[in-house]
Amino acid sequence: MLKIGILGGGQLGRMLLQAAANYPVITHVMENDPDCPAAHLCHQFVRGDIRNFDDVCRFGRGLDGVCIEIESVNVEALEKLESDGVRVYPSPSALRILRDKILQKQFYKEHDIPTSPFLITQNRQELKKQDTFLPAVHKIASGGYDGRGVQLISNPGDLDKGFDHPSVLEKKVDIHKEISQIVAMSRNGQTALYPAVEMIFDPVLNQLDYQLSPAEIPQQMLWRVEAIALKVVKDLKTPGIFAVELFISTNGGVLVNETAPRVHNSGHHTIEANYSSQFDMLWRVVLDYPLGNPKHIMPAAMINLVGREGYSGEVHYEGLDEILKMENAFLHLYGKKETRSGRKMGHVTLLSTDKSDLVYKARTIRKQLQIISKQPEKII
Amino acid sequence: MLKIGILGGGQLGRMLLQAAANYPVITHVMENDPDCPAAHLCHQFVRGDIRNFDDVCRFGRGLDGVCIEIESVNVEALEKLESDGVRVYPSPSALRILRDKILQKQFYKEHDIPTSPFLITQNRQELKKQDTFLPAVHKIASGGYDGRGVQLISNPGDLDKGFDHPSVLEKKVDIHKEISQIVAMSRNGQTALYPAVEMIFDPVLNQLDYQLSPAEIPQQMLWRVEAIALKVVKDLKTPGIFAVELFISTNGGVLVNETAPRVHNSGHHTIEANYSSQFDMLWRVVLDYPLGNPKHIMPAAMINLVGREGYSGEVHYEGLDEILKMENAFLHLYGKKETRSGRKMGHVTLLSTDKSDLVYKARTIRKQLQIISKQPEKII
Repeated sequence: MLKIGILGGGQLGRMLLQAAANYPVITHVMENDPDCPAAHLCHQFVRGDIRNFDDVCRFGRGLDGVCIEIESVNVEALEKLESDGVRVYPSPSALRILRDKILQKQFYKEHDIPTSPFLITQNRQELKKQDTFLPAVHKIASGGYDGRGVQLISNPGDLDKGFDHPSVLEKKVDIHKEISQIVAMSRNGQTALYPAVEMIFDPVLNQLDYQLSPAEIPQQMLWRVEAIALKVVKDLKTPGIFAVELFISTNGGVLVNETAPRVHNSGHHTIEANYSSQFDMLWRVVLDYPLGNPKHIMPAAMINLVGREGYSGEVHYEGLDEILKMENAFLHLYGKKETRSGRKMGHVTLLSTDKSDLVYKARTIRKQLQIISKQPEKII
Repeated sequence: MLKIGILGGGQLGRMLLQAAANYPVITHVMENDPDCPAAHLCHQFVRGDIRNFDDVCRFGRGLDGVCIEIESVNVEALEKLESDGVRVYPSPSALRILRDKILQKQFYKEHDIPTSPFLITQNRQELKKQDTFLPAVHKIASGGYDGRGVQLISNPGDLDKGFDHPSVLEKKVDIHKEISQIVAMSRNGQTALYPAVEMIFDPVLNQLDYQLSPAEIPQQMLWRVEAIALKVVKDLKTPGIFAVELFISTNGGVLVNETAPRVHNSGHHTIEANYSSQFDMLWRVVLDYPLGNPKHIMPAAMINLVGREGYSGEVHYEGLDEILKMENAFLHLYGKKETRSGRKMGHVTLLSTDKSDLVYKARTIRKQLQIISKQPEKII
């Protein structure tokens, strides 16, 4: 049996390991926290720092392959492992590009991949000269994650909010829709495209409300989304699974926002809604099996379950029974002991051929389920 | 988080643990073999003998609940645990009845549950007097499993093949169809019935060819199947999940064959084909959540992948790629290192609304996939 390591032990690792149990594979996980969501589901858990060169080298030595569930890993160690014959998904060279927002933008530009216009700023001083480029979004080159390290700069008065580190300043796009296109590439260059997914944002709270699969976009536009996402992955020249996030602008343009070279939040629904889930698909890539069928079994909505703003501590789920009673809802709780504001604690996938059923239930879940701390110690 | 133990670490435990990762629960497994399919997927693996009183008591102490994935466990220990406040699924009293084929048949008779006529034989001497009861099937009261401990006695010349242990002699039924009806019962007595499943046997090899869900039987007969299975579970008076196996006789009778008080081979397809799988459903029972929706998402076929007759040793899968390329096939390999004649090594679930597609592909899989030993050391 092949021995495969996963760097990172969060919910993506957890779901990867649930899928791994369908195949003959020995799984290893490295993560600092021995209580992390994935720790107990692998053959071999190794406590270590995925950002540390020695830890990652030690972890990967003797394995047949290594994949990631988060980008913030030690790339130099992955390069070393790769040169020693360990297969790495994605390749360290692709990871080096995608984990740095400056290199990523430059990659799109060099490969004629449509993306919003951008400038590079090394520090806040440089940023302050760019008042004619506004409105724009300032993104720190490295270290940002899940909304951290991103700042909207609407007008010159906002320039002070920008980052005093190497960053990219992207022209703000007037967004009609946000799309995620998941693409898998096998070691022999075969590709599989999932139905594109559409993110629905809450206009009041300005946060992800739910996702719909497949996205409701005209066929011609879908083809452009697919063609662009496919080009991103082919130009990265590495096997693996990729979530290409795109904007459809109000004037009909299709622009790449960013690409994650791993299983992704926008693919959670594929566990139940598609023949081969994104997790299953990555194992097929890593184990060198034929790619799976990415087509959907049924249309789906996916709702992230996040810790309620202002609560932290031992988690308590309020309204869980209502979700568990929904006929077409699939609940996934990640087993995290502690909640924090906005922390991803689980998700729900809904299956239905009736879009209004998906939307109604997605909103019901968003309203009814409250993830708070067990003791009602509201800290705000 | 509740701490739940599973007695047995085979493929049923493995799939239970895949489903457990959707819920906040701490999982413990006890099994003798630390390389068993479930060992690496739980929080706490305990090496021990599930038939041993002390081992089971030690395992269950401090847990909130215990369930089984095989009947051959120490019931006395479960009774002890139950009296100490550990919840046991199924209750030891129900398990005591079902794990003994004599008590099980008597239970059906006492509760007016239709089953084939039977006699009890304490030894071969008693059996030999029953030549007027033939053709019949002789089943050893305890210790039989997966076809072992069952002997067809067609005519008086076969009486020598019977068991010299307490056994039940059941009048042979002229079988039109074999059906499995999975039923879940929650702690507060709510029940959920899965669509009945039909087993299709290979008339030449006389072994299970594949299963179809839902079973193709007339509505009136389905109602009888459901009513009878429901009565079995209600009369057992224990929460848990149950596979009630029934015969539909050539003259239209519906007779209970036997009942398993646990997740079951005939429910494997529910992982992909039903909203709440049998594994998900058991966790809902055990964690005291509302029961899930047992309805099917799509019709399905399920094919067991068993070790080819005459081969044993390190497993080698021949023809795996052909299955992995099938658009609507879900492969589950249990990660067993060694194959043996007839050993269950995995299964495939097919989803389709087109029955001929299910049947054609099920037969293709049965023909194409060969599970043999790595070195072609044919021992027969």
